[in-house]
Amino acid sequence: MRVTVSRKAHFNAAHRLYRKDWSDEKNTLIFGKCNNPNFHGHNYELIVSVTGEIDTETGYVIDIKTLKDIIKTEVEDAFDHKNLNVEVPEFKELNPTAENIAVVIYNKIKPKLDSALDVEITLFETPRNFVTYSGK
Amino acid sequence: MRVTVSRKAHFNAAHRLYRKDWSDEKNTLIFGKCNNPNFHGHNYELIVSVTGEIDTETGYVIDIKTLKDIIKTEVEDAFDHKNLNVEVPEFKELNPTAENIAVVIYNKIKPKLDSALDVEITLFETPRNFVTYSGK
Amino acid sequence: MRVTVSRKAHFNAAHRLYRKDWSDEKNTLIFGKCNNPNFHGHNYELIVSVTGEIDTETGYVIDIKTLKDIIKTEVEDAFDHKNLNVEVPEFKELNPTAENIAVVIYNKIKPKLDSALDVEITLFETPRNFVTYSGK
Amino acid sequence: MRVTVSRKAHFNAAHRLYRKDWSDEKNTLIFGKCNNPNFHGHNYELIVSVTGEIDTETGYVIDIKTLKDIIKTEVEDAFDHKNLNVEVPEFKELNPTAENIAVVIYNKIKPKLDSALDVEITLFETPRNFVTYSGK
Amino acid sequence: MRVTVSRKAHFNAAHRLYRKDWSDEKNTLIFGKCNNPNFHGHNYELIVSVTGEIDTETGYVIDIKTLKDIIKTEVEDAFDHKNLNVEVPEFKELNPTAENIAVVIYNKIKPKLDSALDVEITLFETPRNFVTYSGK
Amino acid sequence: MRVTVSRKAHFNAAHRLYRKDWSDEKNTLIFGKCNNPNFHGHNYELIVSVTGEIDTETGYVIDIKTLKDIIKTEVEDAFDHKNLNVEVPEFKELNPTAENIAVVIYNKIKPKLDSALDVEITLFETPRNFVTYSGK
Repeated sequence: MRVTVSRKAHFNAAHRLYRKDWSDEKNTLIFGKCNNPNFHGHNYELIVSVTGEIDTETGYVIDIKTLKDIIKTEVEDAFDHKNLNVEVPEFKELNPTAENIAVVIYNKIKPKLDSALDVEITLFETPRNFVTYSGK
Repeated sequence: MRVTVSRKAHFNAAHRLYRKDWSDEKNTLIFGKCNNPNFHGHNYELIVSVTGEIDTETGYVIDIKTLKDIIKTEVEDAFDHKNLNVEVPEFKELNPTAENIAVVIYNKIKPKLDSALDVEITLFETPRNFVTYSGK
Repeated sequence: MRVTVSRKAHFNAAHRLYRKDWSDEKNTLIFGKCNNPNFHGHNYELIVSVTGEIDTETGYVIDIKTLKDIIKTEVEDAFDHKNLNVEVPEFKELNPTAENIAVVIYNKIKPKLDSALDVEITLFETPRNFVTYSGK
Repeated sequence: MRVTVSRKAHFNAAHRLYRKDWSDEKNTLIFGKCNNPNFHGHNYELIVSVTGEIDTETGYVIDIKTLKDIIKTEVEDAFDHKNLNVEVPEFKELNPTAENIAVVIYNKIKPKLDSALDVEITLFETPRNFVTYSGK
Repeated sequence: MRVTVSRKAHFNAAHRLYRKDWSDEKNTLIFGKCNNPNFHGHNYELIVSVTGEIDTETGYVIDIKTLKDIIKTEVEDAFDHKNLNVEVPEFKELNPTAENIAVVIYNKIKPKLDSALDVEITLFETPRNFVTYSGK
Repeated sequence: MRVTVSRKAHFNAAHRLYRKDWSDEKNTLIFGKCNNPNFHGHNYELIVSVTGEIDTETGYVIDIKTLKDIIKTEVEDAFDHKNLNVEVPEFKELNPTAENIAVVIYNKIKPKLDSALDVEITLFETPRNFVTYSGK
């Protein structure tokens, strides 16, 4: 019996959408007000979903506390109250769109879990905009 | 890397569930109070989810502003503050159940997007009842 | 010890904003698309808040089941899946703005409760627009 | 056209995570504070999602009232305001983790529906922890 | 300038509504299924609101971290994953209705704050039922 | 009949808590990670509540569209996708705590409304932290 277990978490961060290899004009044209050089920010709401077989001993797919701790170490401690462009190494050369942030989070969390488990990341940039990535 | 980008929107509308080729008795039997000839209404909450490859240039699957504008033109301007049965051409001959509304929205939005993108429509008729359609 | 006890409920209804003693032009000028003669509709979300002393015997201000039953009889049975303008007597001569609906609900619920209890009505016309009335 | 129709419901229950064939020490080691012998509890929020073809006559995949009634009989009447470990037969020998509760709910609801319909259960144990099971 | 600062928190607990000085019949008559002797439970969601003058030095009424820590110590550590009737001293002789729990939380938090600050407690027993108490 | 009409809105912004007349050490001591010199950010959710008499002609306290437009001009256009410390004049010398932002918003909106109307500002800095100010 394969079940998906999901845990919500959150972090607040500043960012701007920006490619340093583009002119300012092109950055503004493509990214609009999201390109503001003084940054803007979000309360990112994160759902990490882990799919696998129920362990018949424990009744767990994964101990939710284990998952919560991995999210804290890999995401909250790394991103919360940070400027993603300036302070988070993964975005030094990578534009911190919601899509790219979700991929980075996936790549940080997946190796920390049993390889038999599938992982899906849902990231709300705002309550109205969100993205989903599952490593495919 | 395939990512799903989702955008929330909303519209308010009146409707009734009704087939003009059925007797009043049959309409009432099947559709109950949803068949009220004087109409009732809902705040429909809509999620449009678009799945595709991340553009490595922009970091976007789709510019969310583009998606927001398509939803505004195809759904909000067409359905908001309307009587679906009386004023929306797609429901002249089609019963405006949540299922059928979701299919209509899918059929309006899908052709406006790059054909490589998959689309899924989630439509909340109430906070407790919702439907999902992805063109399958 | 005065405590406020609140109960959420909901109903779906059609309505239009309209004064029959005004010209169509004036109705449209003042009420815009809310004046659509074919109606539109909402999922109204209701919070009824009752304030009074805690009964030291039961630990209740009011049995929430009693409050739930009053809301069902006075509001849900009377308004749900109805056309407020056409089918609800209180709005035959009264424009069903959110403000007026809240006052009508207050006036229906207040007399059903112990007169020592204060009542406040919060009515969400949409998730983004809501009104509050407490009989003052 | 295959559409998924979802209905939300809820129930409140007490439970503890516990295996009677384990020592108290092992139960505490594995289940932590969830093993509290005096029980704790949750407001479980449930989403039952049913996928099938739209009936071209009615425009329904399933009459949502039918689904609501099945959920009431199979889940709400059976679990609400109960102690899952003590009073619900399915958990006499089965540890009531969120994963196992979702499987039990699936197994109760699936046979009540047309066999052509797929079913998925999403169960929120808290607003931050939830599981999904679809019979696979 | 008086501002209210609010912080949300949560705890999960089992309880039953019950007076030991009443007969079982009277307990069942008054408290219905909430009197289940095997307990049921809730995810309690808590809002603690603190009102006072803005400190012109810091721009704070209260450092939200201070408030968060007080809530953790006084409420979360004391109530989370507990059986309120059996394990929480305040409810040994006091029926744990939502009203009484809110008063107990108020009485625990108020003395930990500067006496110039007003405190209001909002406690959601379920997403549909909640109570508010402000020491009056 | 005095009714309160509330409208929700939102804006995303970067900020840091910081007093330029304090040493870096004192800023860090008092404001912790909120003092990050590279900024962090939030999705601010705003509720503007306006209280007044129902106009017996229209059934409105205020046309919600008027209120929506004022919020757009005074708050969304001024704050959205901005760095509050760097780009918003009101915070050049004022620390952008949630408390101070709420007061600034109140002071921008109040004079745009009929002086007979009372105004209350509720500002969510995160889904878990919010402040309320009503000009007292």
